[in-house]
Amino acid sequence: MNDPTNDWKRVLDSHRLPEPVYVTKPTMPDLGRYTQELESLWKTGWLTNQGCMHQDLERRLEQHLGVENLSLFCNGTIALLVALQSLRINGGEVITTPFTFAATPHVLHWNGVTPVFADIDPHTFNLDPARIEQRIGSNTRAILAVHVYGTPCDVDALQTIADRHGLAVVYDAAHAFGVRYKGQSILRYGNASVLSFHATKLYTTIEGGAVVASSQQHKERVDFLKNFGIADEETVIGPGINGKLNEFQAAFGLLQLETVDQEIAQRAALARLYRERLETLPGLKLLPHNKEVTPNHSYFPILIDEAQFGISRDALYQALRDCNIVTRKYFHPLCSHYPCYAALPSARPENLPVAERVAQRILCLPIYGSLPPETVGAVCDVIGAIHRAAVAS
Amino acid sequence: MNDPTNDWKRVLDSHRLPEPVYVTKPTMPDLGRYTQELESLWKTGWLTNQGCMHQDLERRLEQHLGVENLSLFCNGTIALLVALQSLRINGGEVITTPFTFAATPHVLHWNGVTPVFADIDPHTFNLDPARIEQRIGSNTRAILAVHVYGTPCDVDALQTIADRHGLAVVYDAAHAFGVRYKGQSILRYGNASVLSFHATKLYTTIEGGAVVASSQQHKERVDFLKNFGIADEETVIGPGINGKLNEFQAAFGLLQLETVDQEIAQRAALARLYRERLETLPGLKLLPHNKEVTPNHSYFPILIDEAQFGISRDALYQALRDCNIVTRKYFHPLCSHYPCYAALPSARPENLPVAERVAQRILCLPIYGSLPPETVGAVCDVIGAIHRAAVAS
Repeated sequence: MNDPTNDWKRVLDSHRLPEPVYVTKPTMPDLGRYTQELESLWKTGWLTNQGCMHQDLERRLEQHLGVENLSLFCNGTIALLVALQSLRINGGEVITTPFTFAATPHVLHWNGVTPVFADIDPHTFNLDPARIEQRIGSNTRAILAVHVYGTPCDVDALQTIADRHGLAVVYDAAHAFGVRYKGQSILRYGNASVLSFHATKLYTTIEGGAVVASSQQHKERVDFLKNFGIADEETVIGPGINGKLNEFQAAFGLLQLETVDQEIAQRAALARLYRERLETLPGLKLLPHNKEVTPNHSYFPILIDEAQFGISRDALYQALRDCNIVTRKYFHPLCSHYPCYAALPSARPENLPVAERVAQRILCLPIYGSLPPETVGAVCDVIGAIHRAAVAS
Repeated sequence: MNDPTNDWKRVLDSHRLPEPVYVTKPTMPDLGRYTQELESLWKTGWLTNQGCMHQDLERRLEQHLGVENLSLFCNGTIALLVALQSLRINGGEVITTPFTFAATPHVLHWNGVTPVFADIDPHTFNLDPARIEQRIGSNTRAILAVHVYGTPCDVDALQTIADRHGLAVVYDAAHAFGVRYKGQSILRYGNASVLSFHATKLYTTIEGGAVVASSQQHKERVDFLKNFGIADEETVIGPGINGKLNEFQAAFGLLQLETVDQEIAQRAALARLYRERLETLPGLKLLPHNKEVTPNHSYFPILIDEAQFGISRDALYQALRDCNIVTRKYFHPLCSHYPCYAALPSARPENLPVAERVAQRILCLPIYGSLPPETVGAVCDVIGAIHRAAVAS
């Protein structure tokens, strides 16, 4: 009668949601309005190559984000690839974080750079400035930092280190659309910042991304490089690539821009709800507040301490899946575990203790504008019930 | 009264077209039907990452083209980049043609390969097999050949050379959609072929491209690499990239596929018209016929011999522009002239005499399905009048 396996099964059975809930879902613009936008493309036949909507979207994004010198790209990976190339970071070593999506170290590979992994801060999950200097050598060219989950890096500390050693700083700001730090856009720091507008992001152009360059001349160089290095009909200034965002994506992005503030506000409300329900639960740690940051609530990560919570992150992930709640172990495995990077000296687990621990414990919960607050409540109910069943058994 | 400048001006004035005619223009599907296709995306919110339409388009393209193992890409450049990576062509030297679009040598750069330029055949404008062997050294990894204007390379000769020296052969088939050679798709030759579906191509997915791999295992590797090297949730097999084609592009491609045979037939009729009118004009050379080839008429290039025609290619280009006819010097300059490649030993003009001569004389005339035959007639009238005025002056 008191078999714990039965208790556990009963908990999951009684909490299963009727439909699967995914970790994210894009908010779609009105299809009728989107079709209207397409009509102009049907008239002109100008479908890509810096079309009118592309130009319009660059201007509007600059205004919305409070930045200058923004260049659109077909996706965030090619944007990051070109951002590095535009700064001639094309050899030697670059210090970066292992706690990020695969695109971050991969663009180093494509630019002929060896990644050097440094450990992360246990609170923000971003590169720990205290761990960077010990990794700087004579071949170091730059720091490639990531604003993980939209939480700003310690940009002042990173800039101080970079200045002392003559390094460039590039920010992978894939998560950081609309984030402000000390009253200004987080995208204004470093030598370049790169956004992602993938369908899983809070602002999306289906696939897409952007480079925020540091000057008008820098943007011009980025624009050449994203169009094969073509400066004019007779001149190719360097080995560029095709990084062009097409007009169908730009049209989508223009409509998304009208609703992105509302998307962030809805996510903020859901994040508050999660926080109220989960922060008192033993064994769960949430992202810290920082008064100097205007967040975008792009993700809702929780850190699970198995000893206190009662079960491991992997067990919680599976239990939630059994209840029709699809979460993500984002980022697990660490990039330093990928076969293509695992043999690097900097990839050794003993050099990255914080990142190793976080990657084993992190879980991102569903959050997106159209997610009903009741569903967030239901997710919290399940997590609470799982915890109680786990510690009771 | 008999001032030749006035005669020349009179010729241009009397032949100017009322509206500009461009070298190409995409044939658009019905907007209503396109919107219908989009409705399913609005229902599911699945906008990219190997969606249903992406899967459907891969299957249908394979059927249409008569190939297997086709993988869609966001553009042809990233497709070519990944095709090389999938074959581990990631260092040393690769023999290629200087008479091509910038993307061809640039993808070698991105894979850490030094391009070695070899001269072209004076009739097909493709890599001349007789020029390849003298360029092969101990660091040579592969031959990257281009089916320029859709004209098949001498695939048998290239394969013989490759086999003798243990080299891979990759075909840039950006121009070669639907081309058949000896009764089968030209895409079936070599270790991989790469298509472009850019808006300027006869078949388009707005931006887009594809790799045709040589086996199912090869396609699987290509598919991993275009999605960051992700093999499954826990495994990243290598430093891949984001090469994903989104569902909006796939939907466009599905509709384009219904009309592409008609597009080619219309182009064939226009090409016949051009040929009838231009092949008797002194100083113009057209592409040769080859009975073993089913062509796609993706371009209509002419080669201008200044001594016989009366004026140079550059002068004809400008005169046509003055008459509202926009042609393209495709490909001028040669890739071996780009500052980033000009210092290579193989880039010396004296090593590439045929390519140098062709690049100075080539001009691509307007051709696309919806171009009225009368406009082709008018273009031919202008060219004839310019010739007569030029030889008379």
